[in-house]
Amino acid sequence: MTRPPFPTPESWYSHFVSYGETDAMGVVYYAEYLHLFERARSLFIRERGMSYAEVEQRGFYLPIREARCRYRSPIRYDQRILVRCGIEKWSRASLKFIYELYDEHKQVLHATGMTEHACVTPQGRPVRIPEWLKELFS
Amino acid sequence: MTRPPFPTPESWYSHFVSYGETDAMGVVYYAEYLHLFERARSLFIRERGMSYAEVEQRGFYLPIREARCRYRSPIRYDQRILVRCGIEKWSRASLKFIYELYDEHKQVLHATGMTEHACVTPQGRPVRIPEWLKELFS
Amino acid sequence: MTRPPFPTPESWYSHFVSYGETDAMGVVYYAEYLHLFERARSLFIRERGMSYAEVEQRGFYLPIREARCRYRSPIRYDQRILVRCGIEKWSRASLKFIYELYDEHKQVLHATGMTEHACVTPQGRPVRIPEWLKELFS
Amino acid sequence: MTRPPFPTPESWYSHFVSYGETDAMGVVYYAEYLHLFERARSLFIRERGMSYAEVEQRGFYLPIREARCRYRSPIRYDQRILVRCGIEKWSRASLKFIYELYDEHKQVLHATGMTEHACVTPQGRPVRIPEWLKELFS
Repeated sequence: MTRPPFPTPESWYSHFVSYGETDAMGVVYYAEYLHLFERARSLFIRERGMSYAEVEQRGFYLPIREARCRYRSPIRYDQRILVRCGIEKWSRASLKFIYELYDEHKQVLHATGMTEHACVTPQGRPVRIPEWLKELFS
Repeated sequence: MTRPPFPTPESWYSHFVSYGETDAMGVVYYAEYLHLFERARSLFIRERGMSYAEVEQRGFYLPIREARCRYRSPIRYDQRILVRCGIEKWSRASLKFIYELYDEHKQVLHATGMTEHACVTPQGRPVRIPEWLKELFS
Repeated sequence: MTRPPFPTPESWYSHFVSYGETDAMGVVYYAEYLHLFERARSLFIRERGMSYAEVEQRGFYLPIREARCRYRSPIRYDQRILVRCGIEKWSRASLKFIYELYDEHKQVLHATGMTEHACVTPQGRPVRIPEWLKELFS
Repeated sequence: MTRPPFPTPESWYSHFVSYGETDAMGVVYYAEYLHLFERARSLFIRERGMSYAEVEQRGFYLPIREARCRYRSPIRYDQRILVRCGIEKWSRASLKFIYELYDEHKQVLHATGMTEHACVTPQGRPVRIPEWLKELFS
C-alpha cells in the first residue's frame, strides 16, 4: 500500500537513543515515542521562526486531543534516529501533526504516528486558529 | 454516541498523580498515559493469577504494535485516578487491550485508549496465541 | 558501619516495577529512583493527613535543593518493592527527607537516598517552615 | 567559595527543554537532570571516539553506584541549556563523572552533579578499569 506524500513544510529531528529511553526488552519504550514526537514538533515550530512558548504567550494553546503511534520495528540503545514531522490537516479550531521515525540512513521506517491538537484560549475554550499561526506553519 | 459495553473481565488500577507525571501546563503529560495503560495492563494480568514476566518466561512476548489515546479532560497533580482495563479483541496472533481513565468517583471519563499487541517468540517471530494465555485472560 | 536508626514517623510505599521504569540493562533506570522517592514522600505527607497540593495552597512550596541516591543492588521488572521514607533533619527554612528502598520481604536494601528541600513562598523567597507543617510531619 | 577547575577533557551537551521534562511547577522535574547527565556522559564518550554500547560489547559495564544533583536555579520550558561533563576521578575499579548545567550563554549555573560508576564484567563482578578505556577518556 502506498502512503500519501508527506506534507510540506517538514522538519527532521535528529536524536541519539539514551539508556533512559529504553526498557528491559532492550528497545525504546513505547511511551518514549510520544516524547520524540513532541521534540520533532517543537523543532518544526522553531524552524518556522517561532517557539511554542511564544505561541502560548500570544494567548493560544495547542493541547493534544489524540495521539497514535504505529510501532513497525524496534529501536535500540545508542541508535541515531530521525523523526520527520509535518502538518497533515488544518481544521477550524484544530490541527494534526504527523510523524515518521527513521534510522539515520532513512532506510528503515521504525514508526509512524500522529497527534491531533485543539486550539484553545488560556482558559481552555476552543478558538479559531489565528491566521498568523497558519501562515507561520505553512 | 453510545460506546459498546466494556469487555469482561476487567481490572481497575488506582493511581495517585505525582509531580513527575505532570508538565508545565499543570496537567499529566500526554506520554504518561501510556505508562498508566501499562500499569493497568500489568494489574489485569496479575489479577488473572500470572505476571507478564511469567508469560515471557514461558516463551511468549506481547510487544506493542499500535497505541492510541484520546484525551478528553486534563488530569491534575495529586488527583487519584482509576484506569479500567480489559481485552477487546483476540486475533490469531495478536490481541487488543482497551482502557478508560476515570476520576476517583468514576464520574469523569478523562481518557480512553487502546494498545494492540502481537504475540511473538523470544526471537520476535509471530506465533499463535497459546490456549493457556487465552483462557487465563478470559 | 551501622546506620543510625530510621527517624519516626515513617511511611512505607509499595510499588510494582513497570517496563517503563526499566532500561536496556534489564533493571530500573537510575533516574526512576527519584520518581519513587517522590511517590514515597507524597505518601508520607498523605499519611500525616494532608496532601502536598494543600501545602502549596497554604502558600508554602518545598522545592528540592539537592538529591542523592546510592544504588546498592539492581531492581528488576515486575519486582514488588518498598520505599521507606522519613524526615531526618529540620532546619529553619529547609528539611531533609531520607529513603530506603527494599525488596518486598525487607531483606535486601536496594538503595538509599535523600532529598533536601527549601521552604519558599509562591514567589520563591526562602521562608521559615511554619509550625503547623512541622507538627504535621512530626 | 571557589570551585576547583573543571577536569579536561570536557564535553558540552546542548539541549532544548521539552514539555515532557517539565512539571506542574513550570520547571524541569528533578529526576530529569539525571537523564540530562546521561546524555552529556554519552556525548563525552562519543566525542572521545567510542560509544558506550561499544564499551559494553568489549565486556565492560559502568553501572551507577551513586548519583547526586545540586539544584541551584530552576530551568524552564523551551530553554536551551548546556551540560558540561568530565571525569573528576579515576579509581582502580570505578570512576566519577561530574556535571555542570548552564543556560545557553554560560552565565547561569543551574545545577551541578556527579555520578559514580563501578566497572564490572557482564556478570556484574567488579573489575579493574582497562587501560584502553582510561586512555580513551583522558
